[in-house]
Amino acid sequence: MIIRQIHVTPVAFKDPPLLNAAGVHEPWALRTIVELVTDEGLTGLGETYGDLGHLSKVRECAQALVGLDVHHTNQMYARVAATVGDAVSDLHGLTGVATKEKSIDRVFSPFEVACLDIRGKAAGVPVVDLLGGRVRDAVPYSAYLFYKWAGHPGQEPDRFGEALDPAGIVEQAALFIKEHGFTSIKLKGGVFPPDEEIEAIRALHEAFPGVPLRLDPNAAWSIETSVRVGRELEGALEYLEDPTPDIPGMAEVAARVPMPLATNMCVVTPEHLPEAIAAGAIDVLLLDHHYWGGLQRSAQVAALCGTFGLELSMHSNSHLGISLAAMTHLAAATPNLTHACDTHTPWQDGQDVVAPGALRFEGGAVPVPSGTGLGVELDRDALAVMHEQYRKCGVTARDDTTYMRRFQPGFTARRPRW
Amino acid sequence: MIIRQIHVTPVAFKDPPLLNAAGVHEPWALRTIVELVTDEGLTGLGETYGDLGHLSKVRECAQALVGLDVHHTNQMYARVAATVGDAVSDLHGLTGVATKEKSIDRVFSPFEVACLDIRGKAAGVPVVDLLGGRVRDAVPYSAYLFYKWAGHPGQEPDRFGEALDPAGIVEQAALFIKEHGFTSIKLKGGVFPPDEEIEAIRALHEAFPGVPLRLDPNAAWSIETSVRVGRELEGALEYLEDPTPDIPGMAEVAARVPMPLATNMCVVTPEHLPEAIAAGAIDVLLLDHHYWGGLQRSAQVAALCGTFGLELSMHSNSHLGISLAAMTHLAAATPNLTHACDTHTPWQDGQDVVAPGALRFEGGAVPVPSGTGLGVELDRDALAVMHEQYRKCGVTARDDTTYMRRFQPGFTARRPRW
Repeated sequence: MIIRQIHVTPVAFKDPPLLNAAGVHEPWALRTIVELVTDEGLTGLGETYGDLGHLSKVRECAQALVGLDVHHTNQMYARVAATVGDAVSDLHGLTGVATKEKSIDRVFSPFEVACLDIRGKAAGVPVVDLLGGRVRDAVPYSAYLFYKWAGHPGQEPDRFGEALDPAGIVEQAALFIKEHGFTSIKLKGGVFPPDEEIEAIRALHEAFPGVPLRLDPNAAWSIETSVRVGRELEGALEYLEDPTPDIPGMAEVAARVPMPLATNMCVVTPEHLPEAIAAGAIDVLLLDHHYWGGLQRSAQVAALCGTFGLELSMHSNSHLGISLAAMTHLAAATPNLTHACDTHTPWQDGQDVVAPGALRFEGGAVPVPSGTGLGVELDRDALAVMHEQYRKCGVTARDDTTYMRRFQPGFTARRPRW
Repeated sequence: MIIRQIHVTPVAFKDPPLLNAAGVHEPWALRTIVELVTDEGLTGLGETYGDLGHLSKVRECAQALVGLDVHHTNQMYARVAATVGDAVSDLHGLTGVATKEKSIDRVFSPFEVACLDIRGKAAGVPVVDLLGGRVRDAVPYSAYLFYKWAGHPGQEPDRFGEALDPAGIVEQAALFIKEHGFTSIKLKGGVFPPDEEIEAIRALHEAFPGVPLRLDPNAAWSIETSVRVGRELEGALEYLEDPTPDIPGMAEVAARVPMPLATNMCVVTPEHLPEAIAAGAIDVLLLDHHYWGGLQRSAQVAALCGTFGLELSMHSNSHLGISLAAMTHLAAATPNLTHACDTHTPWQDGQDVVAPGALRFEGGAVPVPSGTGLGVELDRDALAVMHEQYRKCGVTARDDTTYMRRFQPGFTARRPRW
């Protein structure tokens, strides 16, 4: 099955003003949709970041991959590695440092997912079956809460409402649980002084007793602040995610707080694993196939984590249905992925490039799509609309900090901040 | 593709009197051939150890796996884990300690290989393509030299001749290189006092300048002996394999000798990796899909080794063509498997359960079989003959030590011995 065409389409979709340590989400979030077409007419889908620097590399690599067999992912990886050149940095820095290795893995990922989509369709099986088969029929996700404004400045308030204090956060959680049935909750922190976020967690703990809670300040805290917060929240958190920057800092915090530490910032590429493991810096790795080199490489990292006694959860950026499907297949096939995964899906509020019906939440979990391959199909009309939005929206790279400075000129994304 | 039948057939084939630290190979070597048949009539092959304790567990698990889909290897693994019970020890101890985890991986392996054989056939691709595709078209193997008697006591000499001193070893190497074109050489040591084996390596080094050499005494040496031998062989060895028992001992030797250390004895299951890596005990892991849980789990271990900077080679016990095919597909798909693999194939001298033609050595390397799946087919007449040999030969478990004691009553397989 030879790849004959690769279509690369950037899209934009509306995004609420979600606050984080880097600033605030812009009105438009970007993604890139990758579509592979084989000589036999089979198509496969992948989804990745939409920032222009990344998009350019995806386009360049797409040229280099035409003519390869969809099974030959080793060769594909080598071609991507030879094409990518230097590392591409994110402006927001929320998924850790940029390295050349990470850039290769990020660019390779959507092509690999699309190849698995095609291989699954050809074999008449879902992608989960190419990864060892399901160990669970539905993948639990967490309610991913954000502090947020009522709406983007100058626009109508969105339907999610304002959340700038513990009461607002509890209300948001109630809405998400009502609409999706989530049984785990994650709060994106690093927005307000730590004591306010401690209060928000305590309010969630009280409002939803027994529901696992996580707090992720995106490395906004010093080591001392992290230790203080960690100790104050003893018994209230399933895990604390990236309280402070870098592996040595995380290792010091890990030794001094009572709960497990998780990361998607200090360990973001295989070369970070030996140091983090030796230092005892983390207890939980948040997998993300978008930057761990696709589904098969993520499965290898998952196996490594199992060998070294690290637990697994899953990271999410703003994404659409192709990614949700891919995440669900991977998580369903990963025995040691025992924490609910993160997803931004509810914030997309129904916007998608995939045709409705294949993906749904049941009790906070997404059942593995029943079709072959990823089990999702492109909605070409929606894709056209979102591509047009991309062309017109004026955003070419996610930049939460610059957008925030329009409204708070003195804002800095300094990490640690507190 | 549902598994409807599983056939488990023990076989025996003639084996020369190869000497090693545990004793000497008996006149018959045992293997178990596993054949899966799906509801659609596709068949898949696997090959594993033939010792009775292991065979019994393979048979028991075969019952438990009927009805599963060939893609559902996670489920298959869980069923094997639930069925295997206690660890099964080898009498020879040449591949390290027995643990329950290792027993599960060993029993699971032939079923997993057979599933990949079927999946490859169904998809119309070779197994290498299910593992990421080839990074090399042919897999280099090493000439695997053994000290040996001219023939089994009471039998005619075999065609390989006696090799009990450096001259005999050089002659054996010349024969293997002439017949197979090998460009790497491994000597199984641990048989004679270390100084004699040092002389054999020096003779090989002189006779075949520039050819990478390895020496494997199967942990027959103390730490001090290992260090002395390692230092005396500086510049002559590609790597030194398992000079001394256990991870702490290997770590001490590794710190004091100039060449890399390799193992298939002190790291034989994932649970050994963290300790060995932390201790710096090894530089090269000898993969073996027969006890690392099949091809996909071996690929995961290979990825882990890449992450931690461990090099890879491949271990071999006496085996037939199904194993050689599986080893070749795995090695061809593993970018960081950069040392020639070990194989006992030449010692089988043409005996096989697979039909001739699919496997051959060219310049010491085995080209990846060109057919779909493993690319080898059962020769049912040969299988019947070898099964009959199994029934009649009287060997039910490899026991090099007891066989050696028939001729050298005072022999012990004590490790370390020198």
